[in-house]
Amino acid sequence: MSEIVKIALIGLGTVGTGVARVLLEESERLTRRCGKQIKLAKVVVRDKSRPRHIDLPDEMVTDNLQDVLDDESIQIAVQLIGGINPAKDYMERLLDSGKHVVSANKALLCEHGEELFSRAREQGRTIAFEAAVAGGVPIIHVLSQAMVGNQITSIEAILNGTSNFILSEMFLGGRDYADVLREAQELGYAEADPALDVDGTDAAQKLGLLTQLAFGTKVSLDQFPRQGIDKLPLEDLLYADELGYSVRLIAVARLLNEQLEMHVQPTLVQLDKPLAQVSGVNNMVALEGDVVGKTWYSGYGAGQNPTASAVIADLVDTVAGRSDLIFPFMDLWSDRPARKVLPAEEIRRRYYMRFSVLDQPHTFAEMADILGRNQISLASIIQHETPESPEANGESRQIVPVVIMTHMTTEGRIRAASAELAELKSICPDPVIMPVLD
Amino acid sequence: MSEIVKIALIGLGTVGTGVARVLLEESERLTRRCGKQIKLAKVVVRDKSRPRHIDLPDEMVTDNLQDVLDDESIQIAVQLIGGINPAKDYMERLLDSGKHVVSANKALLCEHGEELFSRAREQGRTIAFEAAVAGGVPIIHVLSQAMVGNQITSIEAILNGTSNFILSEMFLGGRDYADVLREAQELGYAEADPALDVDGTDAAQKLGLLTQLAFGTKVSLDQFPRQGIDKLPLEDLLYADELGYSVRLIAVARLLNEQLEMHVQPTLVQLDKPLAQVSGVNNMVALEGDVVGKTWYSGYGAGQNPTASAVIADLVDTVAGRSDLIFPFMDLWSDRPARKVLPAEEIRRRYYMRFSVLDQPHTFAEMADILGRNQISLASIIQHETPESPEANGESRQIVPVVIMTHMTTEGRIRAASAELAELKSICPDPVIMPVLD
Repeated sequence: MSEIVKIALIGLGTVGTGVARVLLEESERLTRRCGKQIKLAKVVVRDKSRPRHIDLPDEMVTDNLQDVLDDESIQIAVQLIGGINPAKDYMERLLDSGKHVVSANKALLCEHGEELFSRAREQGRTIAFEAAVAGGVPIIHVLSQAMVGNQITSIEAILNGTSNFILSEMFLGGRDYADVLREAQELGYAEADPALDVDGTDAAQKLGLLTQLAFGTKVSLDQFPRQGIDKLPLEDLLYADELGYSVRLIAVARLLNEQLEMHVQPTLVQLDKPLAQVSGVNNMVALEGDVVGKTWYSGYGAGQNPTASAVIADLVDTVAGRSDLIFPFMDLWSDRPARKVLPAEEIRRRYYMRFSVLDQPHTFAEMADILGRNQISLASIIQHETPESPEANGESRQIVPVVIMTHMTTEGRIRAASAELAELKSICPDPVIMPVLD
Repeated sequence: MSEIVKIALIGLGTVGTGVARVLLEESERLTRRCGKQIKLAKVVVRDKSRPRHIDLPDEMVTDNLQDVLDDESIQIAVQLIGGINPAKDYMERLLDSGKHVVSANKALLCEHGEELFSRAREQGRTIAFEAAVAGGVPIIHVLSQAMVGNQITSIEAILNGTSNFILSEMFLGGRDYADVLREAQELGYAEADPALDVDGTDAAQKLGLLTQLAFGTKVSLDQFPRQGIDKLPLEDLLYADELGYSVRLIAVARLLNEQLEMHVQPTLVQLDKPLAQVSGVNNMVALEGDVVGKTWYSGYGAGQNPTASAVIADLVDTVAGRSDLIFPFMDLWSDRPARKVLPAEEIRRRYYMRFSVLDQPHTFAEMADILGRNQISLASIIQHETPESPEANGESRQIVPVVIMTHMTTEGRIRAASAELAELKSICPDPVIMPVLD
C-alpha cells in the first residue's frame, strides 16, 4: 500500500474541473509516477449551489478556505483561481498554514511573485507554476531543470493563444478583427471581456514571469513597450505576407550587453521561421542558451486539458518531493544584482510602417525627408498603383497606402519621426508601425 | 561554503570535452542551481598521450577506470563513450561501485537498458540519459516529468540530425546524396563511417529508448520496419514537393488499439506540418498525450555544446538529489504487461510510389491491375509528358517515371503488390516506396 498524500483544490472552474477529473480517473497512473497515492480531500468553491461539471461527494466540497487551512493532513493546495484578489490572500494563508502550492495564476505571480516566492522559501514550502505560462508547453520545467547548464540569452515567444488564433484566422480567412474575435468568443478561446488577452497584458505578464526565471530579474509591466493586436487591420497582415512575413504577437526578452531588451508587440516574423508558422491557439517559446543554442517548444497555450496536464505535472513533482529540490534553486530571488532594462528608445530593430497619404506631389518627399533626418534608412517601399481618375491631371488626390520597411534603426528614432510625421497635413494620423523580429 | 560533490568523467571526446569546459568555466552557475559545488575529480581517457582540447591537471587524468571505482569520494560518473563494449562493462562496474551514472549512449541503453536500469535500481543508484536522445532537446525530462499526467499516445520524431541535414540540403541545393554526404562529413555532421546515421539505425535506437519510456515496453530493432535515407534519389524529394510534401526520416511510435505501431522510414510529411519544416541538423519530437494534446520540441540534435547542455542538466539533477526522485518512477520497468508491437503488415498508411516503367502500351494497365487486385486504391498519379521521339510511332520505348499516391492501405498490401510488380518486365526493379505521415 503506497503512502497517501492528501491535497485540496481551490477553485473548480474550467481548469480545476479538468484537474479533478484526471485525479479521480487516472489515480493508478499518478501513483505509479510518484510512488504515493494522491487523494483529493477538499475542493473549495465560491458557491456550493452552482452546478458542477464533475461528480464529487458533497462532504468534499466547501466554500470555506478555512476548512483546508485547518486540516493539517492536507499537504498541498492546488490553487486555480484567477486575478489578484482574493488569490494573493489565499496563497499567503495556504503557505502560512504549511501547504505547498501549485498555481496557474500568471497575473498574481508576475505582480507579486517575488514576495510570494520568498514567503514560500522562508516557510520551507514550494510554489510550482508550470501552468501559469504557455498552458501545456512545459517551459517552466525546461527553464528550471533542462537548461540549468545555460545562461539563457534570448526568449522569443507566442504566449497568448487568443491573439494568435485571431491573427491566424484573420489572415487565412481574409476576415477583420471584430469578426474573428466574435468567433473566438463563441469557441471559448476568448473571454467575454477579451481586453487583457488582445491588448498584450496577458502575454506581458507571462513574459515577466519567464524573465524572472531566466534572468533573475523582476521587471514590471510599465518598464517595457507593450502593444496588443486589437487595433490591427487585416490590410497589414496582407502587406506583411507580400513582403515575406507573418504577423504574430511576439514577446521578447533578451540579453544585450548585459542589459535586458523586452517588448510585447505585433511583430513581423519571416515566413520560414518557426514562430511564423504557429497557428490557432498554439503557443511557442524559442529559447536560446549560451550552451545549448536555440531550442523551440510548442503546444496548446490554454484550455482545460493542456493546462490540467501542466498542473498535474507540478502536483506530481510536489508529491514526489522533487519540488523541494527544484524550487529553492530557481533563479527567482535577487541574490544577484538585477539586470537593467534597456530603455525603450534604445531598442534596435527593423520596422514596418504603413502610412495613409494624400496622393499629391511632394508628399513622399516630405515623408522621406523626415525619416532621413531621423537617421531612418529605407530598405523597401510598396505603393501599389491606384487607378487614375480622369479629372485628376496627374494627381489622384486619393488617400493611398504607402508601406515602408526600414533598415535597422532604434525605437527612439521611430518615435521621433512619428511625432514629426503626425504634423504633416498630407499624412493621416495613426500610421501602423510594427517591429521586425530578426 | 557549499557541500562539494566529486564526479568523474569517463571519455574525453567531443561531448566529454564540452562537458568538462562547462564544469570548469561555469562552476558558480552550477553551484547556484543545485546548492552544491560540483568538482571534477577524475577524467578517464583511453590514451593519456593523445592531445586534449582542454587544459586539465595531469593528476586528474587517468587511463584506468579502476582509479574511479576505487575512489569512494566520487559519487557520480559521467560516462561519455559510445558503442556497447567496453561501455556496458564500465557502466556495470560504476553502478556496482556505488556511483550514479549520467550517460549519452543510446546504442547501449536501447539494447541493454532494461538490464542496466534494473541493476541501477537494485543498487539504489540512478542512470540519467537526457543526452542519449535528440541532443539539446530535453525530451527525456519532458517524458519523465512534464508529461506524467498523460498516457503518451504518439511520438513522431526527427531523431537523426545527419539524415535531416542531408535531406534538407539535397532538396534546397538540388544536389545528390553522395555530394551532400561528403559536405556533411567535412562539416563534422557525419562520421567517416556514416552507416548507422543514414541507414536509420541511430534513429531507431533513439526511438527504442523513447518507446521504453513512453509506453513501458522494450522493443528490439528487428521488431519494426527500419529504412534509411542512403538510397534516396533527389528526384523523389522533388516529386514529393510537387505533391505538397517534404521528405524527412521520421521515427514513429504510437498506440493503436493498445498495440504499438512503430517504424523509422523516409516519409512524406505535408509541407505545413512542423516536422516538414525542420531543416539542417535540427531534431524535432512531436509528442501527443491523452491530456495535453499535441506538443512539439525542437533544437540541435547533436554536437558538442547542445549535447553537453543535456549532460549537465542530468548531472545537476543527480547532484541536487532530483534523479533519486525521478529515475525510480520512470516507466522503464516492465511492472505492467509489455505492449504488443503491431505486425508490420498491418500498419495502415498512405504511400508514395515511383516506378520506372517502359513507355509502351498496356504497361500502366498491368500495373494498375496488380495494385487493384491487392486492394490498393490510387489517389493521384503523375506522369509528366516526355518528348515524342520521331521514330516511335506513338510508343516512345523510353523508361519514364510514374509517381502514384495511394489512398489508405496497409504495408502488407504494398509488399504483396511490390512482389507481383517485380515480376513485370515493363517495370524496372526497386521502385521507390515511401509512406505518408497523416
